[in-house]
Amino acid sequence: MQPPLASDPALATVLAAVQASLRDVERVFDAQLASDLPPVTQLVRHIERYRGKMLRPTLVLVCGMASHPRAGDGVDPASLVTPRHVAAAATCEMVHMATLVHDDVLDEADTRRRGDTVNRLHGNETAVILGDYLIASAYHLCSREAGNEAAVMVGHASMVTCSGELLQLHHRGDYSLDEATYFEIVKSKTAELIATSCSLGALLSGASVEVRDALHRFGRDLGVAFQIQDDLLDLTGTERSVGKSVGKDLEKGKMTLPIVHHLGQCSPASRGEALRLLERACGDFAAGDREAAMAASELASRLEESGSVRHARQRALLLVETARDSIVSLKQCPARDVLLAMADAVVNRAF
Amino acid sequence: MQPPLASDPALATVLAAVQASLRDVERVFDAQLASDLPPVTQLVRHIERYRGKMLRPTLVLVCGMASHPRAGDGVDPASLVTPRHVAAAATCEMVHMATLVHDDVLDEADTRRRGDTVNRLHGNETAVILGDYLIASAYHLCSREAGNEAAVMVGHASMVTCSGELLQLHHRGDYSLDEATYFEIVKSKTAELIATSCSLGALLSGASVEVRDALHRFGRDLGVAFQIQDDLLDLTGTERSVGKSVGKDLEKGKMTLPIVHHLGQCSPASRGEALRLLERACGDFAAGDREAAMAASELASRLEESGSVRHARQRALLLVETARDSIVSLKQCPARDVLLAMADAVVNRAF
Repeated sequence: MQPPLASDPALATVLAAVQASLRDVERVFDAQLASDLPPVTQLVRHIERYRGKMLRPTLVLVCGMASHPRAGDGVDPASLVTPRHVAAAATCEMVHMATLVHDDVLDEADTRRRGDTVNRLHGNETAVILGDYLIASAYHLCSREAGNEAAVMVGHASMVTCSGELLQLHHRGDYSLDEATYFEIVKSKTAELIATSCSLGALLSGASVEVRDALHRFGRDLGVAFQIQDDLLDLTGTERSVGKSVGKDLEKGKMTLPIVHHLGQCSPASRGEALRLLERACGDFAAGDREAAMAASELASRLEESGSVRHARQRALLLVETARDSIVSLKQCPARDVLLAMADAVVNRAF
Repeated sequence: MQPPLASDPALATVLAAVQASLRDVERVFDAQLASDLPPVTQLVRHIERYRGKMLRPTLVLVCGMASHPRAGDGVDPASLVTPRHVAAAATCEMVHMATLVHDDVLDEADTRRRGDTVNRLHGNETAVILGDYLIASAYHLCSREAGNEAAVMVGHASMVTCSGELLQLHHRGDYSLDEATYFEIVKSKTAELIATSCSLGALLSGASVEVRDALHRFGRDLGVAFQIQDDLLDLTGTERSVGKSVGKDLEKGKMTLPIVHHLGQCSPASRGEALRLLERACGDFAAGDREAAMAASELASRLEESGSVRHARQRALLLVETARDSIVSLKQCPARDVLLAMADAVVNRAF
């Protein structure tokens, strides 16, 4: 994730430090997953291409720079990044990638970042175990290289993430899901690992508990905003620009914020119509189910007209504001300003 | 797992200490998995019934007692068990249970310990995430309560376990699998977590690296013997006495030691006949595929006649001998004698 702020020299220095450290993160990532067994190596090679925006490692690094007691004061931000930050950054990406591999099994997705998914190429069984291998590797790396306190935080974040996924599965196809439950799911499933990426950076920089908590809140709000933006892109994006199968949320009966809001506030007649469109939209678009694709498109128009798309956009913008508020009290430094810019970028992305 | 040696008073004292500590393990296990979310609690309740022989927690505890510098000398073995042993024991059972939940997805099994499997009741998607929740909980517990060195060992053991599973999936239905690869798979997939249960006990008792390594080797050989016994039971056991779906190895084209040996040594004509039986045995017995069940039964007779069943039994017995040899040099104490008796029990079980 490269925010569009490379024109400011101080921020450009932070971004250059992040880019350099991300190369170290990739090296640590690859070394940790290396195996003597050729079938394992082949699978690991395949999923290396899943690495996309590297949002979580970037947050570990930038939060590490922004929360360091020596931040600002003309200190080179690159000098604040330690091997423990790099290990924690690789850990967060590995945990995230494990959830992607398992999500693809759950979603029966065929494409991920413009390549075939593991489950499509090698079957669900291999995808389940490969995800487990990634999780085990992440914990092993974290305990070994980032220390015990970091490992406790990563373990806790993973538990919360899984709880959120279980809650989401429990409510799959539940058209009476309310916004409170929607936010409970998203806070756990998506935002907790992002929040922990931020607080891990602070932990490893020796920041105070207050600063660590502030960055955790920053990451949590950012993560929820990120998910709402994903919901909006699933509804309105195209497969080409998002790089993964689009419309999967609808196909699998996953409730997104615009739909939750629409069903919660519209008239009984409109609600009945929306439910009929939702049912019809739960088909396999990619397999040429044109009726499902048309229903999804029709539903998107209704959500736009009823103001539910606007409502979701506003919630995301508000969360970005709250996220920014959590960190304005940090000592002013270029890394903090990069975090503020990243917050804005979350709701402005189309990818 | 309760070895039949409660008649010796010293050993009975060890077994009583183990039973008492296992109740603590169960309490820690349940507390760690507790969730505020009712759907998560409901799933966790269901899998609590998966707890069976508690082999891995028992090994953590008994190895902890046997390797403690104060072992023997009339010391009460119960006094050597610390909360860290209990946490490590619960961790190993949780990791093991996660692999059971995911294995049931892979094996499409319907029954486990005489109850319905999670995947049968709640679908594969829930089973995948519930397994992930168990793994995350295990690591969180281990880092928090058993310490960093234990967490590194558990992370490593899980990586090796997954590598073994991936290697097994890669060779599924590979009728030219040789014994070396078979043992490579079993050493990783089954034996590594058992070995690590043993060395964790030693680590937490402050034993020397030599003693830790000796117990790791003991556990590894025991684990391989355990898997061979499982192979034999899958071939010859009944659903009632094993408590899980029988014949699943055959159905899913998993190569067991008797089959690997038989195919590797018999004449071309017998090999062709065995392969035909194997192909026909890959059906769904439970769904009433009588032809498959008959082929499996016929195959079992051939493996008996050719000496391959005997060969597998002998390999298991030899491994038990090697396992015993690894620990005879430990200081004589009742806990060590319990380990020796447990080694014998592995190949004598019919469950």
